Order: sequence, then C-alpha cells, then structure tokens
Amino acid sequence: MSDTQPKINDTHRLQTEPLDPPPRLLLGPGPSNAHPRVLQAMAMPLIGHLDPRFIHLMNEIQELLRYVWQTQNALTIPISGTGSAAMEATLANLVEPGDVVLVGVNGYFGERLVDMAGRYGAQVRRLEKPWGEVFTLDELRQGIEAHRPAILALVHAETSTGARQPLEGVAELCRENDCLLLVDTVTSLGGVPLFIDAWGIDAAYSGSQKCLSCPPGIAPLTFNERAGEKLHHRKSKVANWYLDLTLVSQYWGSERTYHHTAPIAMNYAFREALRLVAEEGLEARWQRHRENAELLWQGLEELGLQCHVKKEFRLASLTTVRIPENVDGKKVTQFLLSEFNIEMAGGLGQLAGKVWRIGLMGYNSRKENVALLLHALKEALHHLQAQ
Amino acid sequence: MSDTQPKINDTHRLQTEPLDPPPRLLLGPGPSNAHPRVLQAMAMPLIGHLDPRFIHLMNEIQELLRYVWQTQNALTIPISGTGSAAMEATLANLVEPGDVVLVGVNGYFGERLVDMAGRYGAQVRRLEKPWGEVFTLDELRQGIEAHRPAILALVHAETSTGARQPLEGVAELCRENDCLLLVDTVTSLGGVPLFIDAWGIDAAYSGSQKCLSCPPGIAPLTFNERAGEKLHHRKSKVANWYLDLTLVSQYWGSERTYHHTAPIAMNYAFREALRLVAEEGLEARWQRHRENAELLWQGLEELGLQCHVKKEFRLASLTTVRIPENVDGKKVTQFLLSEFNIEMAGGLGQLAGKVWRIGLMGYNSRKENVALLLHALKEALHHLQAQ
Repeated sequence: MSDTQPKINDTHRLQTEPLDPPPRLLLGPGPSNAHPRVLQAMAMPLIGHLDPRFIHLMNEIQELLRYVWQTQNALTIPISGTGSAAMEATLANLVEPGDVVLVGVNGYFGERLVDMAGRYGAQVRRLEKPWGEVFTLDELRQGIEAHRPAILALVHAETSTGARQPLEGVAELCRENDCLLLVDTVTSLGGVPLFIDAWGIDAAYSGSQKCLSCPPGIAPLTFNERAGEKLHHRKSKVANWYLDLTLVSQYWGSERTYHHTAPIAMNYAFREALRLVAEEGLEARWQRHRENAELLWQGLEELGLQCHVKKEFRLASLTTVRIPENVDGKKVTQFLLSEFNIEMAGGLGQLAGKVWRIGLMGYNSRKENVALLLHALKEALHHLQAQ
Repeated sequence: MSDTQPKINDTHRLQTEPLDPPPRLLLGPGPSNAHPRVLQAMAMPLIGHLDPRFIHLMNEIQELLRYVWQTQNALTIPISGTGSAAMEATLANLVEPGDVVLVGVNGYFGERLVDMAGRYGAQVRRLEKPWGEVFTLDELRQGIEAHRPAILALVHAETSTGARQPLEGVAELCRENDCLLLVDTVTSLGGVPLFIDAWGIDAAYSGSQKCLSCPPGIAPLTFNERAGEKLHHRKSKVANWYLDLTLVSQYWGSERTYHHTAPIAMNYAFREALRLVAEEGLEARWQRHRENAELLWQGLEELGLQCHVKKEFRLASLTTVRIPENVDGKKVTQFLLSEFNIEMAGGLGQLAGKVWRIGLMGYNSRKENVALLLHALKEALHHLQAQ
C-alpha cells in the first residue's frame, strides 16, 4: 500500500494579480473600516498560540474587554470566529435540551437566535414586535410570566432595524423569575452605552467589525457567575466542540490547556482595537458616536428623508432610513458604490426594499464621513430622480 | 423605561504598549510563520462581504483551493474559523444521529474526531494503532467489515505523531462498502502529495497555518458529490448553525445569500497563500518540503537522535524526534525559545514527554532554517547535558 503519484492537474492553477481592494468607505451595517493601527498590528509577525508572550497578550485582551464591556466577569474572552460564532457559543453553552428560551424577535437577529436556540434543543418561545420597535418592560414581564423561560434572549442593538432595546430593569425581572438574561451587543459594544454588570446582564456576545473597527474573524463573549453556574452544572455535554466553553475556558484560564489554535493575527488586531477604545475612553467614544449620528439624522431630515426608528430608540451606530416611494433603493446603493466608493446597505426581511442601513461605527464615526455620505446621497437622489 | 447611565468603571482600562512580538522562528506543529506577502495582503483595507469585488475574490479562492487540493469539487470553500472548525464542519454536516462512524485513532487528532463525531450523535467505533504507526489496507478492510460504518474517518497527516497515512486503495474499499471516506489533511495540504479526486476522498478539511503559511483563522473543506448527496438528503437539520453547509454554501454559491460576515482580512491572506502555492507549483513545493525534511532527518541522525516514525511513513512537514533518556525535553524547547527564538514543541497524549515535534512547513521549509535548528539543538543538548 503505497501512494504512487497521480499526474498533477493544472486546470485550476489560476494566475491572479496581487490583491488590490478598492478604497471603500464602509458605511453599511458592518464590517466598518478597520482602524489603520489595527491593520498594522494584525500584520505583525506571528508567534505561537502557547508562547508565553502570546499568553500575556491574551490576558491583556481579557482585561481590555472587561473595560469595554464594563464588567468584572472572569469568563470574558474572544471566540475564534465572527459574531455569529459568538452568538452560537453563548446559546450552545447555556441551552440544555428542553430549556424554554424566550426570544425577543423584532428583527433579523432575533430570528437568528430562534433558529440557533432550536438547534440546541431549546423549546423556543417568541415575543414579537414589528421590526424597528422595541419591547417595553411590561411586555417583557408578561412574556416571562406566560412562558417561564430558563433564558430570555434580547438584541440590544438590532443591526437589521437600527433599534436600541432599553435594558434597565430587565435583569431584575429575570432574577425574580429565575431566568438568565442573554443579550446580543454586536452593534452596540464600543459605540453605544452598555454596562454588563450595572445592568445585570448574565451573558452577552459581540463582534469585532462594528464599533470596534477590527476586521471580522474574532468575536467576544462574557458570562457572569450565574451563567457560569448553568454552564458548569450542565447535564449534557455541550453539543459543539469548537465552541465548548468548558474546554475553551481552560485555554483562556490559568490552565492554558491547548484546545484549538487561536487565530493569532486576529488576536493582535483585536488587542489593538480594544487599546484604541481604552485610549479614547468609553465616555468620549459614546459621545462621538452620538454626535455624528445626530449630524446624520439632521442631514437626512434636510434631504427630506425619514428615519425608520423613533429617535428615543435609535442606535447611534446604525441608522435605518426609509426609502422614498418614488426611489429605487438598490440603484441608490449602487450609485454610492460606483460613484463614491461608499458602501451603504439595504434592509433585510420585513424591511427589505423599505430602508437603507447606514452605519457610523468606530473609526468611521467621523464628521467628514457624515458630510460625504450626505453629499453622495443628495447627488444620488437628484441623479436617479432626474432619470 | 430608560437607561440612566451608571458610572464608568476604569478598573480594567489597561494602559498597554504597542504590539511588539518577538521574532520567533516557528518550527513547531503550527502555526508556522506566515509568508511576508500573506501578512501584507492581510493588512489591505477592508471591503464588504457582499461587495462585487469580494465575491470575485471568493471565486478566486475556490479555484485556487481546487488546484491545491487537486479536486474538481464544486463545494470547496474556506470555513470562518481555524482547522478545528473545518473538522467540526465536516462532521456536523455529514453525520446524522445514529450513523456509525469508524475513526482511525493513531494520534491526538483521531481522538478529536471521536469526540466531535460523538457530539453529533454518531455511534463511534475506534480502530486503534500505537501513536506513530499507520493502518494497513487490510486493517482498514477488517475494520469496515466488522463495523459497517456510514463514514470512515482517517487522519492523512497526524500532527501529533508525524505519521503519514497512505490512502491509496482506501476509497475503493469504502465504495464497495457504501461508506464515505473523510480525511484530515491539516498538516499535509500544500506540503505533502495529496490528491482528493485521484484518491477518491469524499470529504476533507485542512488548516491555513501549516504548509500554506497563512495565519490561523480560516480553514478549508471540500466535499465531492457523494458527500454532497449525504448532506442534501439529511433527515435532520445540521445541529450547528455557524457551520451549516446548506446555508454557508448559499453564500459561497451563485445565490450569495448572506449567512455570516466572512472574515475579510483572513480571506485576503488565504488568497495570497494559495497564490503562492500556484506560483511555485505543487510538484516543486512537495519536492522542497521533502528535500528539507531529508536534510533534517540526516542532521538529527548525526546528532544521535532518533525519529519516532518509520521513514516510509514520515511526513515531510512534521517530524517527531525521540527525546533521549538523559535529557529533559522541556528544558531543550525552553532553551531554543530563549536562546534562539525558535519554537519547537513537545509531544501530546501518548507521546507527551517522549518526543519533540519539529515542523518544516510552507514558507518555513527552507535549508537555512534546518541548519539553524540543528545548530540550536546541538548547542541545547551540549549545554543541558553539561549541567
């Protein structure tokens, strides 16, 4: 039994040019442009995933993440995948087959939580609201009392609608009813006020490529002690090896037991992205996001455009704008891309064809970007309505 | 219900220095050093995951992957995680609850296949060999006839032992017995002769950070039509959302349906790594790996050291060396790291404390690296035996 060598087939031996991506300004729902310092850090020479210097860097990432998330949680780590992997890690580790999981569905990512929780054997119950609205504390109370869930899952920042779900008081409600509060913070972390501990959130996850201005490919999660207790008292093995926090946390904890090879360069990038938040400070960063969003909203109004979400519940990081009746939304996004190298996105699901989505996230939340976008939008509307 | 703002806690607002990784030569089991052109490509400005230019790049990656893997398989894509995620994707999509999965266990990654397959409801059967040995065709035939598996899973290149599992004839055996052949090629792809189609492999996965010299964080898999048929005739939903190929393949296929945000920078890097293979050509690349491995083996012999695997079954990409009885293996690896900035690794599992693992992978498979490593090893042995 030996491998005599077949002939090498050159059919797919593609001759390609060096990479030369166009200079896009990414003002869609993410990824946003990475900060130049993040790109620079990412390209530093690799070291091993068990190198003492890498372990030091892992500790720094965990500390910085605790600052950015405003938490003391020991179990605060990045997952080796994109935001959806962190979402799945949170559910895979907390849901046991048969658990009732109540999901607030007021957008695309609520739907995703429903799908994922179901795959881990949850009895999923839905609490619904039209896309763009948020749940009141009373609605959440009624939902919890009706369904008696083990977990309530809410989306703090719905990337599909631009709505910000207020969270104050929700944790108390959950504790009174012996239920964990799980929160999607993908489009809020680093851009919108978020206090894991003060708000009593038991488990949360996020992404790197939104308000943290790091390329996608690494995504953090944080579990408090209540969530950790559910994890460590599971009756069944976590039904996902790669995302099994009982194993992953031994690599990120003091044991440093090898689980999978960490994405070294993505961790370099993520550390730099978190450093940038620590340098700027959360207060200043949230303020900056807020100010540029206000500028955008004012400019949109001046163009005669209407935001989809009530001002009170709008995310500073992501704005949904209603597409005027006489305008082909897709033609506008194509015009922005081809004429201005600006990426803006359309809506998903219930909002497909009805809204544009404009992100002002992290490094991209700058006055000059707002000015350019408004100019481009004005020109697009003028140009396309004139046709 | 409004979010009045708690006070910001600065406890974890770490002040850190700019990233400054030491100049390691990574001659362990991976990651290997990334090629400088790969690091450069990775740091290019981001574009969106649905940008027409990114979609073009995805097509290029798929084509180049087909060349590197020597396959015509349509379903040939990178997974948005490290090699273990690609391993899990392969199992999660092919295993249905109750399937008998026969795993060849002759090293650490065979054990991992057992663990993962079990989590997806497989009835796992083990075929065992001491670590460092490989299975004969007869042993595989007996195993298949005894267990009648739906899937036979083998590790082509066992990163924990340095053994190369011959695969010629295995596919015929599998087809006769209506069984899929699933192969781990993490440490062989791009470094050791591997022919997916000619050898009749139904499904395979690999990593980026071994012989492809790309940072970890993206990992390819390939399914042929037989594997695709099992996937598309599943009775149950894939029990893993992030890795569900029925969804992921719609993003990589002509539909381009959004599933999760692709890791843009990792795809840039991966494309460049694959381009480098296409430029060099597989024949030349395999030859280079072979020649440098031969140099290493000869040098080790001259130092009085013994390889753990019989020459016939040794991987050119990874060599296991027996630690002499009077030597503290860990002190040697520490000496290499502190004195020469060389990373070399110890053994895992059955081979813990018994072998060192030396990788000569991709960009790192160079004569000068072999010379330096042998010099450093000689000095380490001399220095530590003199103590």
